[in-house]
Amino acid sequence: MFFASDNGGPAAPQIIDAIAAANTGYASAYGNDDLMESVTQKIRTMFEAPEAKVYLVATGTAANALGLATLTQPWQTIYCHRVAHIEEDECGAPEFYTNGAKLGLVNGVDGRMDPAALESAINYTARAGVHNVQKGPLSITNTTETGTVYTLDHIRALTKIAKSAGIPVHMDGARFANALVSLGCTPAEMTWKSGIDVLSFGGTKNGCIGVEAVVLFNPDLAWEFELRRKRGGHLFSKHRYLSAQMDAYLTNDLWLKLATQANDMSAYLAQEIANIDGTSFVHPTEANMIFASWDRAGHRRAQNAGAYYYFWPSDHSLDGDDDEKLAARLVCNWATTKDDIDQLIHHIKG
Amino acid sequence: MFFASDNGGPAAPQIIDAIAAANTGYASAYGNDDLMESVTQKIRTMFEAPEAKVYLVATGTAANALGLATLTQPWQTIYCHRVAHIEEDECGAPEFYTNGAKLGLVNGVDGRMDPAALESAINYTARAGVHNVQKGPLSITNTTETGTVYTLDHIRALTKIAKSAGIPVHMDGARFANALVSLGCTPAEMTWKSGIDVLSFGGTKNGCIGVEAVVLFNPDLAWEFELRRKRGGHLFSKHRYLSAQMDAYLTNDLWLKLATQANDMSAYLAQEIANIDGTSFVHPTEANMIFASWDRAGHRRAQNAGAYYYFWPSDHSLDGDDDEKLAARLVCNWATTKDDIDQLIHHIKG
Amino acid sequence: MFFASDNGGPAAPQIIDAIAAANTGYASAYGNDDLMESVTQKIRTMFEAPEAKVYLVATGTAANALGLATLTQPWQTIYCHRVAHIEEDECGAPEFYTNGAKLGLVNGVDGRMDPAALESAINYTARAGVHNVQKGPLSITNTTETGTVYTLDHIRALTKIAKSAGIPVHMDGARFANALVSLGCTPAEMTWKSGIDVLSFGGTKNGCIGVEAVVLFNPDLAWEFELRRKRGGHLFSKHRYLSAQMDAYLTNDLWLKLATQANDMSAYLAQEIANIDGTSFVHPTEANMIFASWDRAGHRRAQNAGAYYYFWPSDHSLDGDDDEKLAARLVCNWATTKDDIDQLIHHIKG
Amino acid sequence: MFFASDNGGPAAPQIIDAIAAANTGYASAYGNDDLMESVTQKIRTMFEAPEAKVYLVATGTAANALGLATLTQPWQTIYCHRVAHIEEDECGAPEFYTNGAKLGLVNGVDGRMDPAALESAINYTARAGVHNVQKGPLSITNTTETGTVYTLDHIRALTKIAKSAGIPVHMDGARFANALVSLGCTPAEMTWKSGIDVLSFGGTKNGCIGVEAVVLFNPDLAWEFELRRKRGGHLFSKHRYLSAQMDAYLTNDLWLKLATQANDMSAYLAQEIANIDGTSFVHPTEANMIFASWDRAGHRRAQNAGAYYYFWPSDHSLDGDDDEKLAARLVCNWATTKDDIDQLIHHIKG
Repeated sequence: MFFASDNGGPAAPQIIDAIAAANTGYASAYGNDDLMESVTQKIRTMFEAPEAKVYLVATGTAANALGLATLTQPWQTIYCHRVAHIEEDECGAPEFYTNGAKLGLVNGVDGRMDPAALESAINYTARAGVHNVQKGPLSITNTTETGTVYTLDHIRALTKIAKSAGIPVHMDGARFANALVSLGCTPAEMTWKSGIDVLSFGGTKNGCIGVEAVVLFNPDLAWEFELRRKRGGHLFSKHRYLSAQMDAYLTNDLWLKLATQANDMSAYLAQEIANIDGTSFVHPTEANMIFASWDRAGHRRAQNAGAYYYFWPSDHSLDGDDDEKLAARLVCNWATTKDDIDQLIHHIKG
Repeated sequence: MFFASDNGGPAAPQIIDAIAAANTGYASAYGNDDLMESVTQKIRTMFEAPEAKVYLVATGTAANALGLATLTQPWQTIYCHRVAHIEEDECGAPEFYTNGAKLGLVNGVDGRMDPAALESAINYTARAGVHNVQKGPLSITNTTETGTVYTLDHIRALTKIAKSAGIPVHMDGARFANALVSLGCTPAEMTWKSGIDVLSFGGTKNGCIGVEAVVLFNPDLAWEFELRRKRGGHLFSKHRYLSAQMDAYLTNDLWLKLATQANDMSAYLAQEIANIDGTSFVHPTEANMIFASWDRAGHRRAQNAGAYYYFWPSDHSLDGDDDEKLAARLVCNWATTKDDIDQLIHHIKG
Repeated sequence: MFFASDNGGPAAPQIIDAIAAANTGYASAYGNDDLMESVTQKIRTMFEAPEAKVYLVATGTAANALGLATLTQPWQTIYCHRVAHIEEDECGAPEFYTNGAKLGLVNGVDGRMDPAALESAINYTARAGVHNVQKGPLSITNTTETGTVYTLDHIRALTKIAKSAGIPVHMDGARFANALVSLGCTPAEMTWKSGIDVLSFGGTKNGCIGVEAVVLFNPDLAWEFELRRKRGGHLFSKHRYLSAQMDAYLTNDLWLKLATQANDMSAYLAQEIANIDGTSFVHPTEANMIFASWDRAGHRRAQNAGAYYYFWPSDHSLDGDDDEKLAARLVCNWATTKDDIDQLIHHIKG
Repeated sequence: MFFASDNGGPAAPQIIDAIAAANTGYASAYGNDDLMESVTQKIRTMFEAPEAKVYLVATGTAANALGLATLTQPWQTIYCHRVAHIEEDECGAPEFYTNGAKLGLVNGVDGRMDPAALESAINYTARAGVHNVQKGPLSITNTTETGTVYTLDHIRALTKIAKSAGIPVHMDGARFANALVSLGCTPAEMTWKSGIDVLSFGGTKNGCIGVEAVVLFNPDLAWEFELRRKRGGHLFSKHRYLSAQMDAYLTNDLWLKLATQANDMSAYLAQEIANIDGTSFVHPTEANMIFASWDRAGHRRAQNAGAYYYFWPSDHSLDGDDDEKLAARLVCNWATTKDDIDQLIHHIKG
């Protein structure tokens, strides 16, 4: 009954097998391995982007911070949702990698930026010229931090504003696969065809050990990105083991199958929770995360039985009134089973 | 016949097995996994340092830059050998992580800093007070970049100067195991007993996939280090796969066995080269790297037959006079075989 | 009729005279001049702080950024009002000097932080440990950007929260003199007796050419501050001309007389505006700035007659409906005369 | 008998007068004052550079660091002489403003970089691609730190190498006037006609209070420079007092007259020292600084009589053998008189 995060589960067996298979003989270091060539070709094909440059790093924070730094001057503002991972969960990595850019926080319900709020934030920026921090890139998280998904229309409403303001667009796709499966569109539609310039394409949360691809749809940024990656300590010498993960992830639609499983389990869990009297949802369930609320007695039974998940916000506690409703975040991953869910539901119901 | 680097070879099978074995069920993320607890205990025991704090990252550059940044103010000088990895091979990562510290380059033969040159560099620093960059940490690389090893006496001669000047000491131990095996001393003797405060303890070059431990002998630095690691994007969510590598590496003296094999092959290679007429050595062979010189005809035969290694300096070329002597760097790793070496020697001899 | 800012007016003649008087013979450079010794003694006496360290720089942005950087780690949050100068008017200088700290924006009416909002912002910070940016200093602007003044009770309500959270406190006193005159308290009461650790003590806006003192009530920070000042390019070689300004400013209560004149003129202007039919105030008038609103016809008459001031917000325009009310910011300085004000009022009235 | 530095002397009376004259009425802040327009026109005319952009700051360190940061990426090397001011006397300001660029130290006698050494340093840079810090700008100091002057041929030999390598060139002209007077060429010849892209044009050491112009011969860099200046805290609100200094400095050839006087006094001093038995020169005297050596007894007599100057290197002492020769740096400025020199010589001779 582990629903704390999609980074607590095991890797898919295909990923482990790929690492073992890559472990033969000598290979060129630092990204010049043959498997990386295969990864690049797969991503270019999949994204219908034959000119795109593709780089691997091991963490989502590195992918976001390096991608953003390549788009941002130190005296600029990065626009993102108030609860974006880059604002809330990276200990200031974007500020570090950009040498002090600001994050301009944009409101919006269910973790999605409101286009009017974005436009207003952009227009407010740099109104007094040299005295102000200037306009910088927009960063869109899809799947959002609250488990919702920006539709193509949502994305385009935001990128249209960005393009009018002359600013580039980054997508934090730590849960890209979950969003794509949810939308049923193509990778190209979800990215460059909708105005995305740089993508963090996540593997870690969706069944890999630790690998994220940064996709630069504008290849002019490539050399600067490579220097920033090296200087940040994120260029692997034995790079083949990153390549092997990503290559296996993209083979035979593994990445889509894993995300489909996570999303399906999440939908099943949401339905089961909805069937319990007195539960309610904080955000709609659109990918692999559920934000739902029920009484403390139910939480107590579930957690005492070994269920592992975070309250939302996290400072809630099991101590207190039985009937008080408390919200929780429940995350499914590719390894979540119906049985896990049935057990959880059983304990919540009591 | 791959002698280009110790990062081109495969991982030891025990490392791969450990990753596969770790791939079961759920584990706490971000270093709170059980395997990490085991790693910490093993390192504390091995280094006779029950208070030490231990952290894992995936690259040597990250280990060095984070460790040094924790010891350095932005307005300080880091003293290191003129050809240190942190100066020559990290694209300015120390400058980036420290927010602009200087690297003060110290001369010395065979890649080892000369104590008098270090003392002179330290004394020269900050002689005009606030106008100058100030004194910062000393960084010692052992095994050095030129394949030599600082003995305990060497290390202590340098750390004594550092301690007199009130500055802390970092050791870049990307090839720590090779040096230790060469010296036949204990890990404690080679580090804190000789004045080392922070150690980058390498696994990647010696048979792992990608893992380095940073050992803080002074636990007061721990929280700052943790924040810097996270902010740098180097804290792994699925941390258990870093832990699994390091744990296997430290089990049953695997790390020492791998380094012994690499050093032994290097000694064998050095002896075989010495037996060829007209060869000479640029640096003594003390660990797993050889810097030797022979005629271009021999290089041409070897490289045409598929031998892979770098000239030293790297701008030499196969084009030119047959008889001209050119130096090369040859690196052995745990997977190097006598057969590899015999073949290489065969082609050099012609 | 210049009411655009208190940085557009001339310097007080005593300041110019002091510079001329200092221009004789040779003087030690870099702050070792005799006049600086006098400045330090005057400030220590005036602030009843015999241990305080005092440093001069030429701009308010330098004073704030250097003072804050000395109090802040790169991975921390600086708490300030949403419209603070450090957030809105320094092009990210605090982010640059701190190497990427975040500014945590706190709401509150009339430019004063609401204590409950501050407490909530602090409590929200670092709730997830290493994943979050950590708690850093509080920065209070007095006089605020909207012309109001924090009373001693206001200040203490905020610093009490900061002290409970273990964070230091900075005061941006670019208009310190105007606030002090308004409050009628002592410099010590307004600063260290109310919990302020580092003060930017402004001279430039109140009749100097360009000089601000940074007062460190905690002398332990002194050497780091000196290094940061030099490294930032803010240590003057011919320092005596900064010292001369500040020394004259503090002699015979010049600084208080200049601020009294500016505040008095502001009070007179506020009263005259209040007497005009249909005017209203956006913020209370408590120091030397007025935020008031009247019809566009009045603005048009005043500006066409040569009145110089900014709309508030600045994107208002003279084009449009005669009757529409538009807000303006009017700033008085030591050189503002009753005649300036009478003329302005005359034109507004029409 | 003050020969310690050209920053210890008074400002020229014309500079003080100009500040007083500027102190009337209201002026636009932040560089939009009328006097700044005059300064820009004068510099454009004087440098035959009608497109150049001109900015004022108050210190030489700010001018150098901001100018260099505008030309340098964080992962690049700035080439300069081993004893350049940016390396030795700015507490790492270039590293801070560039976010961690390296300074690549180039040897050369008498403070002038040797072209072959520069070429070798450039060629060594980035030979291993992404692993290395990359090639960045060249910085030439004229007048050098050792009182010599690069001739036009010297300058062009260096800038030709830089241009071949595709790197821009900065000139640290803290003592530009002294060099120009020494060379007898035009400002254009000494700068853009010889390949200089960005110039720090010094006023402070040559009779101003505190003002340096940064001249961007490539106007495309202007907006970035303006943002960097503001973000660094170097944009003055009451900017007219910087403008007034620089405007007076450039009026009626004041700057050339002041430098001529300093250089002439220096030549006179050199000749008088040469006439003393047993003296010798460490570097040739080509501008306003002398590096000469004589016996300790002479130093003792001079310093006991009140002469103020630095030993070279500065750790020499008056204690010791009478006959031992010690070198000194003696700096003349516009206010140095024959009488000062005659007194000094009198005491040295004893």
